[in-house]
Amino acid sequence: MFTVDRWGGNPKGLPNPVKGAHMSAQPLKEVRIFSPATVANVACGFDVLGFCIDAPGDEIVARFSTTPGLRITKITGDDGRLPLDSKKNTAGVSAHALLRHLGKSDLGIEMEIHKKMPFGSGLGSSAASAVGGAFVVNRLLGDPLTRRQLLPFVVAGEAAADGAWHADNVGPCLLGGITLIRSNAELDVMDVPIPERLWAAVVHPDIVVLTKVAREIMPRQIQLETSTQQSGNLGGLLCGFFKSDYALIGRSLHDLIAEPHRHRLIPEFYRAKAAAMAAGALGFSISGAGPSVFALCDGEETARKVAAAVAAVFSSVPIKATPYVSRINPKGVHVLSES
Amino acid sequence: MFTVDRWGGNPKGLPNPVKGAHMSAQPLKEVRIFSPATVANVACGFDVLGFCIDAPGDEIVARFSTTPGLRITKITGDDGRLPLDSKKNTAGVSAHALLRHLGKSDLGIEMEIHKKMPFGSGLGSSAASAVGGAFVVNRLLGDPLTRRQLLPFVVAGEAAADGAWHADNVGPCLLGGITLIRSNAELDVMDVPIPERLWAAVVHPDIVVLTKVAREIMPRQIQLETSTQQSGNLGGLLCGFFKSDYALIGRSLHDLIAEPHRHRLIPEFYRAKAAAMAAGALGFSISGAGPSVFALCDGEETARKVAAAVAAVFSSVPIKATPYVSRINPKGVHVLSES
Repeated sequence: MFTVDRWGGNPKGLPNPVKGAHMSAQPLKEVRIFSPATVANVACGFDVLGFCIDAPGDEIVARFSTTPGLRITKITGDDGRLPLDSKKNTAGVSAHALLRHLGKSDLGIEMEIHKKMPFGSGLGSSAASAVGGAFVVNRLLGDPLTRRQLLPFVVAGEAAADGAWHADNVGPCLLGGITLIRSNAELDVMDVPIPERLWAAVVHPDIVVLTKVAREIMPRQIQLETSTQQSGNLGGLLCGFFKSDYALIGRSLHDLIAEPHRHRLIPEFYRAKAAAMAAGALGFSISGAGPSVFALCDGEETARKVAAAVAAVFSSVPIKATPYVSRINPKGVHVLSES
Repeated sequence: MFTVDRWGGNPKGLPNPVKGAHMSAQPLKEVRIFSPATVANVACGFDVLGFCIDAPGDEIVARFSTTPGLRITKITGDDGRLPLDSKKNTAGVSAHALLRHLGKSDLGIEMEIHKKMPFGSGLGSSAASAVGGAFVVNRLLGDPLTRRQLLPFVVAGEAAADGAWHADNVGPCLLGGITLIRSNAELDVMDVPIPERLWAAVVHPDIVVLTKVAREIMPRQIQLETSTQQSGNLGGLLCGFFKSDYALIGRSLHDLIAEPHRHRLIPEFYRAKAAAMAAGALGFSISGAGPSVFALCDGEETARKVAAAVAAVFSSVPIKATPYVSRINPKGVHVLSES
């Protein structure tokens, strides 16, 4: 029922990052990593909870170069929207922050970014870039820092893209699994166990919701009673994760804070929710700031049905909808190949 | 690290309430129970979290009588403040609700109540009476209901005394340990594991804070950002309980919602808090609506030092202060003797 604590320095399922083979005399020349999408907020965990899924995600390649400094040499999949200037690019910003910390800003490194997930989708696209940039460079250098130690650099990268200092996407992308952010200001981020049969059905409707608009639509004050109820649900959800209690997870997945406002930015939101619940979802809400939506489900089969039912609602409008069905990804960002 | 789940019908450490000996041909004639104090809110868990301590608490005796109906024959320790009319008395209200549910309102039962804890102390005095009333009668009748099944009746009893429908005191008093209330409206109450070395230092300063005043001093609206930070701390505290992570418990014990307002009702609150932290407390805040205060501590020795340091601050004013040092009480209300 309980996952290994991934905070002790050695992330689950990965070789020890500090004492591993790549600190040996045979240095790496090139590393390719995959940085996955994440679902933040998770209904009752506004700004404090997130989880990682298997796909979509970005691929980033880093290799040593004879030209001093970090350069981004290629970006694909962005329709020309991302800056090649590494000081302005999210992946570049986090990599620069890491290199500065290590005193290696002059090191010659080339980076290629292959965006394979939609922008402004509510799936943590900028977080994936921020995490990927620091992670791939750290790996190329032989893992001088642990994953956990990369957290401030990846948050800085996301803050450059997003304007806000928060870890509810970068946390689960970097560390995998389900993460609770006790404090964004202090970057006090912790691991929550993943119930074995917990699957996510995520659907991205192809409309644009600007994060700025999704933020502005939120009230700055809420009723104390609303806060209390949301807290009860967050507590219930965490207990559900720790106890692998799927019914409790379902009873807890209610968002009384963001969803009542942000649903207006997502056409057919409540029809999609009704379809998800009818198909057996434990609960359904908005992924991050939207427009993607997610459901948590007991088992893969239910998650597939739920994703199809939700996608069908959007398609009927018609809005193009892309479903992603995934277990909760325990690994987070990881190496695809290296040489 | 993890306690036995006390929700399966058989409360920890007690004989099975349904199939136990008292359903046999030898019925009980008299039962005496102890109903303990509780600490609600627990800093970051406003209206959703509570825990049970060993003392103080009330004793209630119930015995069969030849006169039909439930009667309260004696109350001690209340300075004449509690009604003998069983329909107006908190313990009577919960017992009546239970008897009505069981279709046994005409059964002749006498009840004696021995108040051994202060009124309006923030230690769940009315909750202890409400829990004790239903529990002692259920026991006298041979435990027709489980503890969990008594919850709606004891909440009704407390609501009669307190005017509010909430389970953050009656939950831990009835069920023991640490309880999270996912929903007060739905009475969705769950068990949280008790870290082995967790002790509470509770101090009651002998001043009066009316619950009504403590409620009215609270704002009806709060900043969204405050709600988010409080949620992060509640999540951190729950993770700390599940993982027996004392440092995390300490980092999470902050109340940004009630304490900033209610501290004004407690003289020397911040001096007491500083004294508690200097003596090694993990965290310190107001117990329930106050005026009692509590600290959570790693180990009995620290809890004793903390309680003494806090009591000394109140005594210096001078306000008479009574310290209670307790492990987290896993049992809750329990039988003292029966015949």
